[in-house]
Amino acid sequence: MRNLTQANVTDALIRSFDETPDARLKEILCAAVRHIHEFAQEVHLTQEEWLYAMHALLRAGKISDERRNEFIMFSDTLGLSALVDLMNRGNGERETAASQLGPFFVDNLPVASSSTVDLLRNFPGEPVLFAGAVQGRDGAAIAGAQVDLWQTDNDGLYDVQRPELEESRFRCRLRTDAHGRFIVKTIKPLGYTAPMDGPGGEMLTATHRNIWRPGHFHFMVQAAGFRTIVTELFPEGDRHLDNDVAFGVRESLVIDMPLCGSEEVARQFEMPVPFTKVDYTFRMTER
Amino acid sequence: MRNLTQANVTDALIRSFDETPDARLKEILCAAVRHIHEFAQEVHLTQEEWLYAMHALLRAGKISDERRNEFIMFSDTLGLSALVDLMNRGNGERETAASQLGPFFVDNLPVASSSTVDLLRNFPGEPVLFAGAVQGRDGAAIAGAQVDLWQTDNDGLYDVQRPELEESRFRCRLRTDAHGRFIVKTIKPLGYTAPMDGPGGEMLTATHRNIWRPGHFHFMVQAAGFRTIVTELFPEGDRHLDNDVAFGVRESLVIDMPLCGSEEVARQFEMPVPFTKVDYTFRMTER
Repeated sequence: MRNLTQANVTDALIRSFDETPDARLKEILCAAVRHIHEFAQEVHLTQEEWLYAMHALLRAGKISDERRNEFIMFSDTLGLSALVDLMNRGNGERETAASQLGPFFVDNLPVASSSTVDLLRNFPGEPVLFAGAVQGRDGAAIAGAQVDLWQTDNDGLYDVQRPELEESRFRCRLRTDAHGRFIVKTIKPLGYTAPMDGPGGEMLTATHRNIWRPGHFHFMVQAAGFRTIVTELFPEGDRHLDNDVAFGVRESLVIDMPLCGSEEVARQFEMPVPFTKVDYTFRMTER
Repeated sequence: MRNLTQANVTDALIRSFDETPDARLKEILCAAVRHIHEFAQEVHLTQEEWLYAMHALLRAGKISDERRNEFIMFSDTLGLSALVDLMNRGNGERETAASQLGPFFVDNLPVASSSTVDLLRNFPGEPVLFAGAVQGRDGAAIAGAQVDLWQTDNDGLYDVQRPELEESRFRCRLRTDAHGRFIVKTIKPLGYTAPMDGPGGEMLTATHRNIWRPGHFHFMVQAAGFRTIVTELFPEGDRHLDNDVAFGVRESLVIDMPLCGSEEVARQFEMPVPFTKVDYTFRMTER
């Protein structure tokens, strides 16, 4: 290994992993090395460019915190997150398509006492009645499935981005009823931009890329014996559905938001008029 | 872009860079995306593996500081640093081969008043008389070249790793004399391990790789009109010359360390006996 050349350095690296006990780890590292080396040779990476990248990675680490992982932002904006979701969870044909978890999930939320939850209260925003169903194979209802919903408010902010808040807002955890159904009274989520003050934002600025995500509802659905669903639903009509900075949109995750004309429904759920009603069925597959 | 599939997501990403004004940036980002996606598909990266990687990158950022860049450690241990050096600076045929700068360079050192510098003083270690020359094309002496040398002490530590030290140690900046020559009285540098408390160390442990670097002198040589040399010289005989964890060794950078039997040289430079004498010529190319 003292006679390293451009031609043999990749093989030398791959041999250095010969003693790796875990075959999967070895496979992943060897493939990573091959692609990193091929990339560097293909573009003939200069020492100055290499150093810039090393500093950018360092800065990405420094700007990250408990809630913000700039490396996930790179993964999202470079389409790796989308690819991993698509490879592992398909495109929505058999089970609800997966999409980003994002940094705003809160895992220790209490379970609501009812399968109907009011997040709307008197907050500003376009009222939405979200009527969900959770089904397994052949449309069988999944009762007692745990559903997490979290979304932005009418300023495009999550509750966890408002340190002054003492309670959760536009966020709930509930269980489906005996028919596998649930209702959430909420508002239409607003879109927001990727964080632009770090190296990920620099990349978007330097490439003149769109920096917006379309508005979306985050969902996590869990039920015993089924694969957990982590996904996002995107109201139709958002101007960034076709250039989501994070590549999270799938055709099957775009939802119509028709105005509900039923006075009976409005009365039953005490919805302010006008409001839109979403009907969406989450499809789960067995583990 | 709302109909993303595993088959079209890479093209969608590449199209997202269509408006990039800087052609080189566009080239690099598109190649990076292609290789990242090919890698993920080739190994069929799972969501759990992806998440592990995102956390490892975050941890790499958190453990880095002004002096330590864990991403450079990954670059070194995965052979990217070696490849970039080899691609850009060749293998030592025309100019001295390049090798890692490392994290221990100090840029604000005063220039010594003489081209002969004593770093040895009374410190423990195997005494070395390093007789260097700096030459341009056809062996022409380069007078006044600025030479930085830094190395470990007899405990395998750099001075900057000893916060109690108030002055530099085993580190100097000098200028070559009218014949392009310089002398440094020093000791044989000891090898050391890669930092093992971060995700880079975890990778080395999990793969049962050697964690040692062979002992080495760091050099930076700068002269007006010439490309700067950043390299390392490795004393022959170290047991890790053939499995340097950082892939920094090149055949042309391995130096013999013969015992010097000349009483005249010993007297001239007031060297403790026995000592080894290194003769090394740095070859620079014009910019």
